[in-house]
Amino acid sequence: MKLNKTLLAAAAAAIALPALGYAQEAEVAAPTGEATDQVKFILTSVLFLVGGFLVMFMAAGFAMLEAGLVRSKNVTMQCLKNVSLFAIAGVMYYLIGYNLMYPLGDWAIDGYFSALFPAVAVLEPVGVAADALDDLAYASTGSDYFFQLMFCATTASIVSGTLAERIKLWPFLIFTAVLTGFIYPLTASWKWGGGFLDAMGFQDFAGSTVVHACGGAAALAGVLILGPRIGKYDAAGRTIPMPGNNLTLATLGTFILWLGWFGFNGGSQLAMGTVSDVADVSRIFANTNTAAAGGALAALIMTTLLYRKPDLTMVLNGALAGLVSITAEPLAPGLGTATLIGAVGGVICTLVVPALDKMKIDDVVGAIPVHFVCGFWGTLVVPLTNGDANVVTQIIGFLSITIFTFVASGVVWMILKAAMGIRAPEEDEIEGLDKAELGMEAYPEFGRAGA
Amino acid sequence: MKLNKTLLAAAAAAIALPALGYAQEAEVAAPTGEATDQVKFILTSVLFLVGGFLVMFMAAGFAMLEAGLVRSKNVTMQCLKNVSLFAIAGVMYYLIGYNLMYPLGDWAIDGYFSALFPAVAVLEPVGVAADALDDLAYASTGSDYFFQLMFCATTASIVSGTLAERIKLWPFLIFTAVLTGFIYPLTASWKWGGGFLDAMGFQDFAGSTVVHACGGAAALAGVLILGPRIGKYDAAGRTIPMPGNNLTLATLGTFILWLGWFGFNGGSQLAMGTVSDVADVSRIFANTNTAAAGGALAALIMTTLLYRKPDLTMVLNGALAGLVSITAEPLAPGLGTATLIGAVGGVICTLVVPALDKMKIDDVVGAIPVHFVCGFWGTLVVPLTNGDANVVTQIIGFLSITIFTFVASGVVWMILKAAMGIRAPEEDEIEGLDKAELGMEAYPEFGRAGA
Amino acid sequence: MKLNKTLLAAAAAAIALPALGYAQEAEVAAPTGEATDQVKFILTSVLFLVGGFLVMFMAAGFAMLEAGLVRSKNVTMQCLKNVSLFAIAGVMYYLIGYNLMYPLGDWAIDGYFSALFPAVAVLEPVGVAADALDDLAYASTGSDYFFQLMFCATTASIVSGTLAERIKLWPFLIFTAVLTGFIYPLTASWKWGGGFLDAMGFQDFAGSTVVHACGGAAALAGVLILGPRIGKYDAAGRTIPMPGNNLTLATLGTFILWLGWFGFNGGSQLAMGTVSDVADVSRIFANTNTAAAGGALAALIMTTLLYRKPDLTMVLNGALAGLVSITAEPLAPGLGTATLIGAVGGVICTLVVPALDKMKIDDVVGAIPVHFVCGFWGTLVVPLTNGDANVVTQIIGFLSITIFTFVASGVVWMILKAAMGIRAPEEDEIEGLDKAELGMEAYPEFGRAGA
Repeated sequence: MKLNKTLLAAAAAAIALPALGYAQEAEVAAPTGEATDQVKFILTSVLFLVGGFLVMFMAAGFAMLEAGLVRSKNVTMQCLKNVSLFAIAGVMYYLIGYNLMYPLGDWAIDGYFSALFPAVAVLEPVGVAADALDDLAYASTGSDYFFQLMFCATTASIVSGTLAERIKLWPFLIFTAVLTGFIYPLTASWKWGGGFLDAMGFQDFAGSTVVHACGGAAALAGVLILGPRIGKYDAAGRTIPMPGNNLTLATLGTFILWLGWFGFNGGSQLAMGTVSDVADVSRIFANTNTAAAGGALAALIMTTLLYRKPDLTMVLNGALAGLVSITAEPLAPGLGTATLIGAVGGVICTLVVPALDKMKIDDVVGAIPVHFVCGFWGTLVVPLTNGDANVVTQIIGFLSITIFTFVASGVVWMILKAAMGIRAPEEDEIEGLDKAELGMEAYPEFGRAGA
Repeated sequence: MKLNKTLLAAAAAAIALPALGYAQEAEVAAPTGEATDQVKFILTSVLFLVGGFLVMFMAAGFAMLEAGLVRSKNVTMQCLKNVSLFAIAGVMYYLIGYNLMYPLGDWAIDGYFSALFPAVAVLEPVGVAADALDDLAYASTGSDYFFQLMFCATTASIVSGTLAERIKLWPFLIFTAVLTGFIYPLTASWKWGGGFLDAMGFQDFAGSTVVHACGGAAALAGVLILGPRIGKYDAAGRTIPMPGNNLTLATLGTFILWLGWFGFNGGSQLAMGTVSDVADVSRIFANTNTAAAGGALAALIMTTLLYRKPDLTMVLNGALAGLVSITAEPLAPGLGTATLIGAVGGVICTLVVPALDKMKIDDVVGAIPVHFVCGFWGTLVVPLTNGDANVVTQIIGFLSITIFTFVASGVVWMILKAAMGIRAPEEDEIEGLDKAELGMEAYPEFGRAGA
Repeated sequence: MKLNKTLLAAAAAAIALPALGYAQEAEVAAPTGEATDQVKFILTSVLFLVGGFLVMFMAAGFAMLEAGLVRSKNVTMQCLKNVSLFAIAGVMYYLIGYNLMYPLGDWAIDGYFSALFPAVAVLEPVGVAADALDDLAYASTGSDYFFQLMFCATTASIVSGTLAERIKLWPFLIFTAVLTGFIYPLTASWKWGGGFLDAMGFQDFAGSTVVHACGGAAALAGVLILGPRIGKYDAAGRTIPMPGNNLTLATLGTFILWLGWFGFNGGSQLAMGTVSDVADVSRIFANTNTAAAGGALAALIMTTLLYRKPDLTMVLNGALAGLVSITAEPLAPGLGTATLIGAVGGVICTLVVPALDKMKIDDVVGAIPVHFVCGFWGTLVVPLTNGDANVVTQIIGFLSITIFTFVASGVVWMILKAAMGIRAPEEDEIEGLDKAELGMEAYPEFGRAGA
């Protein structure tokens, strides 16, 4: 009986299904084989969750990179700043940033201006049913929030390195709150919130401009107002090297950032529910890696040629420069082109670092060359591989976001300077912020060389 | 024409499919777009594998946190303890723990008491067919085992920090074997193995009590029997600071733990095969992050108010306190409530740390404030957001697990003390366990400050 | 009665569903519950992407392990070598390695010998359609490329530790280019590219031989030509200990490698689209963990018995030895057998380390005992649990790959020695490569003990 029914079904199916073009599989699997909407939703949410935790780990990468590149007397402070800024980003993006960044859509939350005060981010309810999702065609709001928050936090992490070793803790943290609650979400909305740059056709896949150049512009405004560290440039204008205290930490931080970047760029595909999307995410992973490799090797070769000795910190920054450079368009290039885009980023980095020093812009970890300048390069080169982009629009996008960020940040820095001072007292800076401001050394048991 | 054929096929399939044994689902599965049972199984297994490797990495987080917070003369020992305890947990949970923890179900393995001796954990066979799975409605046994093992190992990691710098290696490792093979699996089974606490309605989503307070109770029993480090409290009862030797490692460890906690809490949803489940996992990720942020910021503010100087180690512990606090219920709260729950945890931590010192309880890394006390707080606050919980049951659950663990651990510690001694000889403790017990320093080339 | 209603419902549904707009899928999707081909493709691609980023992170693990085990005067160089080799692997595997390794199939790219020069790796086009995929039954080419590249890079990472502290930078990097572009891809193709070892039935699931023993053989050839570090063996043939400068880094590196190995072995299932496959991946995760635990505990016990004092660096290497040992067959064993296979690896490691020193083979980090010797052990023991393997074929496979690698590497090292010298000048080695070759110390502020 059972067999007969089965046979009947098979026969009926065999007659009917060939017209669908997948006869043999069709009886059992799906005709087109595509995932259902709900499975797509799950897979894209997974992309955001996995991508998000990878980008979250970049906060550790920045912390280690910066703790390794400052002098040991400021390490505790640098760790404290990095943990605190990440926590502040989490709160500010919840309170204001998320809804400021996505004000136009209706998938995420109710309209931003529905009340006198902005609404805080609200996730889908517990155990939400399929027909009650904010957007079944996308991903869970919680996963999107989590992923986007980590981009916001990354922007703040970029700033802390440049201003290290002399900025006071609290003004830095207040600036971080403004940056993560207002400046970044606003400028990011111009592109990713469906704003005017998006309408113009500005292309910035994962944020060479939106995240990296934005963070770099905020850092640049800060460093110009803050000034260089004491003793960094002598009377004759020469640069006095202030080598990082712990290069293994800087190396570890770079590897962590490299790792996190797969989530940063791969997650920015914003979809993983189709074979096409997952193949694109895969392209992005491969391109992201090869761009970092290109940047590192370019810096290795450049420093060998320029200084006769390869420079580890420059190679690390070269890898990061390659990563920033590919971030505006990690999908369209082939592996070879991606390698070259990254390599040019690495070359740029090695040239801009000394150039900044000549201008007496004291960027402790090289965040401006890496994130701001290579952010520009990455944005500019998109039209090479992506036919939807054009150079003029790319430049407009870059300038819009960076000039606004630079000016707005400058205003905030100036207000903070006037209100409470942003620079540690000279004697604190000389003694080190760890002892002077925190009363806690990072390595209290280890003697100083020559001390 | 095509439509007609389709209709024909549909009709034929509809008649025939019931005979295939999937009739009920067949009618419903695809229209609403739900994943099939097998796809759900895969997705939940992936949740456990990814969640599991994130929690596994927490072992590295604990190792770095503890290695950073002890004095440099005990760093090698602390690393050795952390690697060894993780290995011991892996073996004991296989031999005894897993089947002791899940004795009631029939999905995992054959009955625990089917023989005189407990059966070891057994995974599904290689290439298991769909109809031979232990439970198609859940996840692969291997993924569940992997995930649950990491929770067991976490419990043991909590203990090692509290007792650092004076406990001998072997008694600590023997205790670890008992904790991971017997004590944790037994108490965990009361809730997660379907035991009496579960039947009572005790709510502990990812283990504020089951894991963290359990580990904290075991540590508390140990520290009371072991006593404080030599010189930690002077004759007048004042606390002598013994600052951690390497705060970058402590910072790194905290970031790794923060990262791992997404797996810890997110994986505890125990399902990712529906849109509802993945949206819940997403909520959990977002809430977990914001609770950590709340805890860190609370500790930042509290230490600034109390001591005029922000305290990095307290901020790190504040983040962890926030994470422990949200672990009992990371799903139900909204982002704002989760932030506040975490923030209260951060405040508690800053108050309990000095209180313990006043009681001359010398907890080297602050594991008791973070895991035990905030574990209580997190457990207690569940009814605020989860209507299925009530305060009395929560307290009963907390007390049941922690009192049992405290007493059982105390007995084990006493036996170990009587049998072999648990405390390093005084001269070894003063010299440092690394040289005295291991003959190997962690930083042999770096001179001591003032030495 | 129930059946009749079901049948009725099914018929009704079949007639009605087209109106719901899901007709096409509804007939087919659910019946067997299996994932559709496209969903399988996505899930396997996800396995490669997640597995790949975990293996990528192993590069950081090797870097930290090696930076921790060398003396502090060579740390910058060791970091530079590790970052650079990873970058070189990325470029060489793109240019030559990938297509050299998979020349036989037609799924990946066009024929390797279709032109005079080898074709570089080419990914699927952006937004590739389902019917244009290279292989719908497998995974996206980009994800496969990404995953396989990381294995290639791992092979190179193995070499750098053995030769640390005395090899010059550039010859090492040139060797890395040859290894990752030619030697590894060629020998790996014998098994994984469908070559003669695969045809013979040689079994090496994730590469105990293909990756680890290959890297170990390349390192062995190098160390024999390079010779031991100055002062490592005194005139009487005794070994002078040269302890690692930073054991927390070594511990961190080991934990990172342990983490990454889940991707290494789990991803090598090469499929995650069925319940059977995901259950197998889960088995592999669990077995991989327990083998590492067995290796660590075996080394802990062995060093305690042999030297009266447990040895942290040996326990770390024991965990890695366990991991290498299980890599040839992480699927077939049960948990107990996997633990024992790992434990034997740990024992082997503790015995081979001093044996190498007696032969004056100066392997700075123990890569030869861990990767080469335990790679052999892991390969040899496969037939114990996998009926498709036999000892003779396993030995043939091991010898084929390691002898070829040893000879080819030896030739390359000899050429490099003749052409440019591979060993740093004596005075550079004594001063340390960091100062002498790079002019940059890893810890410039920390005084040396006794200095």
